[in-house]
Amino acid sequence: MVLTLLSETESTSVETALDRLVSFTKNDMDKVNSLILSRTDSHVEIVPKLANYLIEAGGKRLRPMLTVAAANLFGPTNGNEIFYAAAVEFMHNATLLHDDVVDESNMRRGKPAARIVWGNQASVLVGDFLLGQAFLMMVETRDLDALGILSKAATIIAEGEVFQLVKTGDLSTGAEEYDQVIRAKTAALFEAASEVGAMASGANDVERAAMRTYGMELGRAFQLVDDVLDYGGGSGSLGKNTGDDLREGKMTLPIIIALKDGSKAEQDLIKSALGNQDTDDKTLQSIVAILEKTGALQHTLAEAEKCASAAENALQAIAKSPTRDLLGDIAQFCLLRAY
Amino acid sequence: MVLTLLSETESTSVETALDRLVSFTKNDMDKVNSLILSRTDSHVEIVPKLANYLIEAGGKRLRPMLTVAAANLFGPTNGNEIFYAAAVEFMHNATLLHDDVVDESNMRRGKPAARIVWGNQASVLVGDFLLGQAFLMMVETRDLDALGILSKAATIIAEGEVFQLVKTGDLSTGAEEYDQVIRAKTAALFEAASEVGAMASGANDVERAAMRTYGMELGRAFQLVDDVLDYGGGSGSLGKNTGDDLREGKMTLPIIIALKDGSKAEQDLIKSALGNQDTDDKTLQSIVAILEKTGALQHTLAEAEKCASAAENALQAIAKSPTRDLLGDIAQFCLLRAY
Repeated sequence: MVLTLLSETESTSVETALDRLVSFTKNDMDKVNSLILSRTDSHVEIVPKLANYLIEAGGKRLRPMLTVAAANLFGPTNGNEIFYAAAVEFMHNATLLHDDVVDESNMRRGKPAARIVWGNQASVLVGDFLLGQAFLMMVETRDLDALGILSKAATIIAEGEVFQLVKTGDLSTGAEEYDQVIRAKTAALFEAASEVGAMASGANDVERAAMRTYGMELGRAFQLVDDVLDYGGGSGSLGKNTGDDLREGKMTLPIIIALKDGSKAEQDLIKSALGNQDTDDKTLQSIVAILEKTGALQHTLAEAEKCASAAENALQAIAKSPTRDLLGDIAQFCLLRAY
Repeated sequence: MVLTLLSETESTSVETALDRLVSFTKNDMDKVNSLILSRTDSHVEIVPKLANYLIEAGGKRLRPMLTVAAANLFGPTNGNEIFYAAAVEFMHNATLLHDDVVDESNMRRGKPAARIVWGNQASVLVGDFLLGQAFLMMVETRDLDALGILSKAATIIAEGEVFQLVKTGDLSTGAEEYDQVIRAKTAALFEAASEVGAMASGANDVERAAMRTYGMELGRAFQLVDDVLDYGGGSGSLGKNTGDDLREGKMTLPIIIALKDGSKAEQDLIKSALGNQDTDDKTLQSIVAILEKTGALQHTLAEAEKCASAAENALQAIAKSPTRDLLGDIAQFCLLRAY
């Protein structure tokens, strides 16, 4: 399967968007990273060990970079964005720790998951610790509105995770319910990360609304692409984590579409493999072929493209600047991950 | 074993202290309970079901009652205590949900634990949801100082739980480390619950410090008594949850003392049973006999009595009132639970 979502020129200009974001935010992210390191500290040795094992495992830190980048859009900042960014990263990592316990995942960021190294018990509790530290950092900024936004996101994320759990293996799950799940479990944090960053440089209501929409649509695009990558991505080639969602019974959009549009035999094959940890690679390969034949992966990527465009469009409400354009390119970068 | 920690008269006057606290806080607790019910609501059906299954299982709600009672000590309240009390109860229940997963507990409040009914996964995630909702309620009060106190408590609790986990089955654990664990995992929330309540009626710094000490010492007494109850309490009679701590390998004070003061053979018996899920009731009975012989239970209860007295004494810094005296009686009530 070959999709041409982006023209050659666009592709060249956006391929390095993440690198450019990394360079652009380097000074701020150095501060964020120091803060992260200092706030994982504890007299209980395993707390910083486990927390830093995960945090330093080479995640992209896209969410905190969004926060500090957003804080550069609207004028001088009050410095709060460093605390928000660290809090956002802690919230994200707390979620990952708990998710890996819930999903019984063995790998994370190319290494054995923390729960494999330190056990489910410590993973649950250190996740709670990170969540507590995240709130404490927010309190330090003494900005109640930002605190409300991030607390609300924490609740929505947890609710979304429960909703996803309930829908696991539920063959009647529709595209709308899937969208509800990804808005909550993934996009809500992108949304909050973008808005609180903007607040640190005094964004007005219109600008905050624009950043909320940007974050929400970017987060949806990000998750849609992730869900395509779990079936090998646009290239159709299977990587080491391919099929995890299938074996866990996650009702992601590619599967929802294939269950709607596939033949009876194809639907039956998918149903037999969904939630079955023993699904072999040969069956997985057949299912990927069904996802390609029914256009499920292509359709999911087209949805992601719509979201990325909506994210870019939202930025039009904000004064043009190199930072704004960079954030627009980041939306396109999220799509490129699929290839 | 018969301990006479309280004279006959004291016993009569304090036996109904909890009932008196329940009556005294009834109006406020009705508001707290309505708030709790409204904040467990979610479009994801399992969230209120699981949350209310636990919350309505008949816990004493001692912590939120402390909060609303403390708010009656220092003059007219600003109403925030209702939100703090609900937040405290949510934090407590989030901890219970996660604890039961961590400890693989089967029973809670006389019913199958939520994780048995809905699974570990939903218990972890609904715990996260309750924690998020707790923070949101605190944000609504717009009192950053109280928010800081409760956030700090959340972090300390998680850290204490990890410390306890690390110390599980560690035979070298000393009384000081045990005290560190119970201060963090239990008493920190009693401390925060008492202080934020006081803040809602404008307590000054001295009064807040007194309420902190009251809560901390009450929490320590409460946990010490709990840990004695796990070996049958002062009566030495075994109930249905007796021995859970032993089988889970928890290094509580009775065990720490017996490992120090018991004979070599007694120490060996304890070591063989600690952390062994298959320890039978006969062995447990023998270990309880060792705990009695070495004075471990008596010594632990004496520690609890010291803490309860320290809690009562702390209240002396506060103007005398029926509410103050009631809180003093609650400290003594915590001791009575052991019998």
